[in-house]
Amino acid sequence: MAHTASEGEVKAVVDRVHEIGLKTELSRGEERTLVGVIGANAYAYREAFSHLSGIHEIIPITKPFKLASREFRPHDTVVDVGGVKIGGDEVVMMAGPCSVEGEEMLLETARHVAAQGAKVLRGGAFKPRTSPYSFQGLGEAGLKMMAAARDETGLKVVTEVVSPQDVDLVARYADILQLGTRNMQNYALLQEAGRSGKPVLLKRGMSSTIEEWLLAAEYVLSQGNRDVILCERGIRTFETATRFTLDLNAVPLARELSHLPIVVDPSQATGKWSLVRPMSLAAVAGGAHGLIVEVHPTPNQALSDGAQSLDFAAFDRLMSDLRRLLGAMAKQLA
Amino acid sequence: MAHTASEGEVKAVVDRVHEIGLKTELSRGEERTLVGVIGANAYAYREAFSHLSGIHEIIPITKPFKLASREFRPHDTVVDVGGVKIGGDEVVMMAGPCSVEGEEMLLETARHVAAQGAKVLRGGAFKPRTSPYSFQGLGEAGLKMMAAARDETGLKVVTEVVSPQDVDLVARYADILQLGTRNMQNYALLQEAGRSGKPVLLKRGMSSTIEEWLLAAEYVLSQGNRDVILCERGIRTFETATRFTLDLNAVPLARELSHLPIVVDPSQATGKWSLVRPMSLAAVAGGAHGLIVEVHPTPNQALSDGAQSLDFAAFDRLMSDLRRLLGAMAKQLA
Amino acid sequence: MAHTASEGEVKAVVDRVHEIGLKTELSRGEERTLVGVIGANAYAYREAFSHLSGIHEIIPITKPFKLASREFRPHDTVVDVGGVKIGGDEVVMMAGPCSVEGEEMLLETARHVAAQGAKVLRGGAFKPRTSPYSFQGLGEAGLKMMAAARDETGLKVVTEVVSPQDVDLVARYADILQLGTRNMQNYALLQEAGRSGKPVLLKRGMSSTIEEWLLAAEYVLSQGNRDVILCERGIRTFETATRFTLDLNAVPLARELSHLPIVVDPSQATGKWSLVRPMSLAAVAGGAHGLIVEVHPTPNQALSDGAQSLDFAAFDRLMSDLRRLLGAMAKQLA
Amino acid sequence: MAHTASEGEVKAVVDRVHEIGLKTELSRGEERTLVGVIGANAYAYREAFSHLSGIHEIIPITKPFKLASREFRPHDTVVDVGGVKIGGDEVVMMAGPCSVEGEEMLLETARHVAAQGAKVLRGGAFKPRTSPYSFQGLGEAGLKMMAAARDETGLKVVTEVVSPQDVDLVARYADILQLGTRNMQNYALLQEAGRSGKPVLLKRGMSSTIEEWLLAAEYVLSQGNRDVILCERGIRTFETATRFTLDLNAVPLARELSHLPIVVDPSQATGKWSLVRPMSLAAVAGGAHGLIVEVHPTPNQALSDGAQSLDFAAFDRLMSDLRRLLGAMAKQLA
Repeated sequence: MAHTASEGEVKAVVDRVHEIGLKTELSRGEERTLVGVIGANAYAYREAFSHLSGIHEIIPITKPFKLASREFRPHDTVVDVGGVKIGGDEVVMMAGPCSVEGEEMLLETARHVAAQGAKVLRGGAFKPRTSPYSFQGLGEAGLKMMAAARDETGLKVVTEVVSPQDVDLVARYADILQLGTRNMQNYALLQEAGRSGKPVLLKRGMSSTIEEWLLAAEYVLSQGNRDVILCERGIRTFETATRFTLDLNAVPLARELSHLPIVVDPSQATGKWSLVRPMSLAAVAGGAHGLIVEVHPTPNQALSDGAQSLDFAAFDRLMSDLRRLLGAMAKQLA
Repeated sequence: MAHTASEGEVKAVVDRVHEIGLKTELSRGEERTLVGVIGANAYAYREAFSHLSGIHEIIPITKPFKLASREFRPHDTVVDVGGVKIGGDEVVMMAGPCSVEGEEMLLETARHVAAQGAKVLRGGAFKPRTSPYSFQGLGEAGLKMMAAARDETGLKVVTEVVSPQDVDLVARYADILQLGTRNMQNYALLQEAGRSGKPVLLKRGMSSTIEEWLLAAEYVLSQGNRDVILCERGIRTFETATRFTLDLNAVPLARELSHLPIVVDPSQATGKWSLVRPMSLAAVAGGAHGLIVEVHPTPNQALSDGAQSLDFAAFDRLMSDLRRLLGAMAKQLA
Repeated sequence: MAHTASEGEVKAVVDRVHEIGLKTELSRGEERTLVGVIGANAYAYREAFSHLSGIHEIIPITKPFKLASREFRPHDTVVDVGGVKIGGDEVVMMAGPCSVEGEEMLLETARHVAAQGAKVLRGGAFKPRTSPYSFQGLGEAGLKMMAAARDETGLKVVTEVVSPQDVDLVARYADILQLGTRNMQNYALLQEAGRSGKPVLLKRGMSSTIEEWLLAAEYVLSQGNRDVILCERGIRTFETATRFTLDLNAVPLARELSHLPIVVDPSQATGKWSLVRPMSLAAVAGGAHGLIVEVHPTPNQALSDGAQSLDFAAFDRLMSDLRRLLGAMAKQLA
Repeated sequence: MAHTASEGEVKAVVDRVHEIGLKTELSRGEERTLVGVIGANAYAYREAFSHLSGIHEIIPITKPFKLASREFRPHDTVVDVGGVKIGGDEVVMMAGPCSVEGEEMLLETARHVAAQGAKVLRGGAFKPRTSPYSFQGLGEAGLKMMAAARDETGLKVVTEVVSPQDVDLVARYADILQLGTRNMQNYALLQEAGRSGKPVLLKRGMSSTIEEWLLAAEYVLSQGNRDVILCERGIRTFETATRFTLDLNAVPLARELSHLPIVVDPSQATGKWSLVRPMSLAAVAGGAHGLIVEVHPTPNQALSDGAQSLDFAAFDRLMSDLRRLLGAMAKQLA
């Protein structure tokens, strides 16, 4: 309460809190009175009393997320995707083209990255594009190509879903549902993905705080789905030299706050293929459980995001550097 | 092309551009060669050649949005919502509670704001909340209350829709569909709203540039819906003293770039009721076609966003100040 | 203290606080113990105990600035610059070229803006430029031209000082010392300006919070100089359509927190002359005590920032619109 | 030039460019005319013609910085600080307390970090503090303590200078002059440091782009001082979970654009000691030439920034992890 709050104002706050079904705990000091608000949902209801007169400030003491919190589950969650384990001591490489452009290029890429040690194939069939005039993806045809590439190579498949109506369709083909940065707060989609029974790769919103990201994870978890993989993919800042600012601080910080595994996407974040290798190594050195990078057989012909895709030679160099790095950290590639 | 680009590199770029169906135009200077790329969709395809060697930089010359652009339609669009005209010389006040909490409080608010000169009733029935544990709105029951308030007061109704599946439902009750900041790049929703036949109030994404915002409008317009109203509602910056940073620069700038009307939401942006009046006046002085503000009969009991809602007395003062201001600008309230 | 803090941890915090000369006040609740820290300088010393174990969070209860705060001085400060009063009911227009380029252009501009009702002449003699290869200003020669323009027109002179060594020199010629956005946290300069006896126009740092800005003002005020004028000039955000994002929210907010007058610079902020008029009107409608705008007789020949300068016709239109607006607000131009 | 530019408008631009002493080169295409502007200083003068009518856009083709650019000096610069080489294959650890608080704590820290392999002692004697009421450092007394610690341990000394007047004084005691984030655009200070003959550690401004940072380096280099070390220390973003957002992308990017060495400060950036170890490893894996970290014998008693300082045990663990990591990268600690 404010310095100058009257007894009546304190009482009005206490009464209002009780009225909405929460408990209070008063701490009276010489200079100020503090009103503790206690209850399972206290955070959500702060707005119901925040306008009362005499309040100096409302300060959340407990974290607003629960199921995602390290306190709720002290040990690291390991998401098991048909035998590929994400969240343990092995680092998982996910690689593939930005968009699925055709069967041949996809298979060629899948074979190559599998031979180099990748475990998951990435590729977009439904693309959320800023402009309605940009290439929007091949849709179900693209999903079928992904599934065919899985059948041949044994790679698991991660691909984006952009609309609640498409969750069932995508879940038929994918091993992991990707929720993209523009949809991190698309709650209908989060809940539908939560009900799908599939692991969810949840990209951080480009302007979302870590707390909001974990609350978005909470939407999925609260549907009974425990298999959420966080993915840092760059935030929007004033810097324009990179497409986004890859926020690697999020890796150790999310691991402190949450038990969920976290992977890093340096391709989308930086928008520059030459930065993908150093930022991948940095991510893993900082504690990431995996990487998701764009690889294309001929990046200069890619229909989208060519400038940020690695070609095969650059991917091979990355894998070899990664192996050396992981060796030094007493870890290994999955 | 780069300073050092060879003839072969220039040719490779030209060939690739032709391959994807666009035309080129070469400008050779003493120091550099420029390759102009011409075609209806040139912007969307830049990624298909951006990785070729010898390119120095790719610079968009024409704007990526068309239907939303001032060049496409030189005169201001006026959206007619059952006789309430948004985008002309009259400034339209939209007011109401953040959430529809119950019939009585809604009616009381609607009657009051209508008597003071508001033309549109705002109120959320479907609420996109950061936390799954927060109050999510009354759903269809809330929509029915909005419709009842319209029947009694004659106010038009604007309310948010958060999922493509709900567009039909919300369109049955609402006069204007609101698309919220978290859904500005939810393209499935944009397109569905575009097909609804209803005017769309498109809030700016909290981390969206003005160009991305106009591209989002383009998604709606490209479905044949010409009635898009832009709404500036604050962007995310480093400043934490206000909830978001209301970016009033967007008002004159959007009016330069686009023919679409623009309204301003100072309540959501600032998160502080005491800033709503000065920022409303500033918005209108800067050229806004309307305002959308939160009003609540008893803000200290509001279930959400109480601290940013005006009570009736504060709303009345705002309306009176607005009238005086508009008089000085040779405009008036709708 | 944390939920799990032991008695020993509470005691260690209390002891440490006493050790650095502050008082404590314990509030013990059922779930938590709170340690209030009391003393003139408590905020500054938080780092001296923030690392002790068992602490959950340290929350500043009182504002870190004092002399600048509204609580310290409840009534608006009016800065009297040789009869021109900034901070009262009259709005003060400051106008002139970005840089002083020569005597003739300066005089021509000064005569014009004075005839239209400006009270202060702005113009840079020392320019802090991002590139060492850009025009750095005319130095003392420029100051002399400003003083000559004052002698002829009666306008007061505001001009920037960029180094503590130059404060005496600039103070000999200027009526108001301007501290620029890049120097808002140049504390040696702030203190030297504080000792100069001249009013100080303190521009907000382009990435400074309002709190940091008021703390910078505190550096000047704490030298015994009461005449500080705040100046909002745009902050750095992700938006690139304007040069900076003019944050008009800062106007009513700074007026709530502080008694100091605040003026707005729409030219530097937006970087576009076409936005200067609407944003000037918005600033004044939102409560600004004055404006500082760039005016140039022939903007297309300006050595710096031509694109953001008004020509004489555009300035005249602004002044006429301002007068009408102020009339509606029962205010007037100084 | 714009689509619609007349011949007269093209001519006016060409004439103006010639008038300011630059050359032009015309490229006429079917749809547009391009005017190339050529000259040593072209970038700096763009504002002198940017407002002419008929111009569509002015696009810088060459980089605004020269001496700092990789094009100017293709090989990595190695700064030799009395035998400690920064910028080569060996990674240099700089460590020490945030502030010099007293002789004993400084010596104790210096001995410890030297024994563990650090080569440079950091410590602030002049502290730029946001609040005028915070501890401002011990001044020359602190510098003497740093010099004494150097004499005993052989560590080189890096310490901040905050005012041009103090450059001589600090240069008498320090081996490397540190220019802090709040002073990155304090051009008087940059130039004075450039003339000091001492290596300069140039911290990135908290809201500075990489281009502006390299331009600030250019201010130092243009005084004839070739020994500039860049230091990434976090940028200001919307994320509040860390004190700043450490932008590791800047490491590989600055190395592409410039030949200057780059070190990383994870302590100031994150503000959390628990993030220092993972972000240090990430920085080095991403290509940093060195680290500068805060170490304190008893962080819970530190007068400033205790929560972000490592204690001795945490520092030892970091050094041991670093050695392992560098081994994997075929590098080593200096």
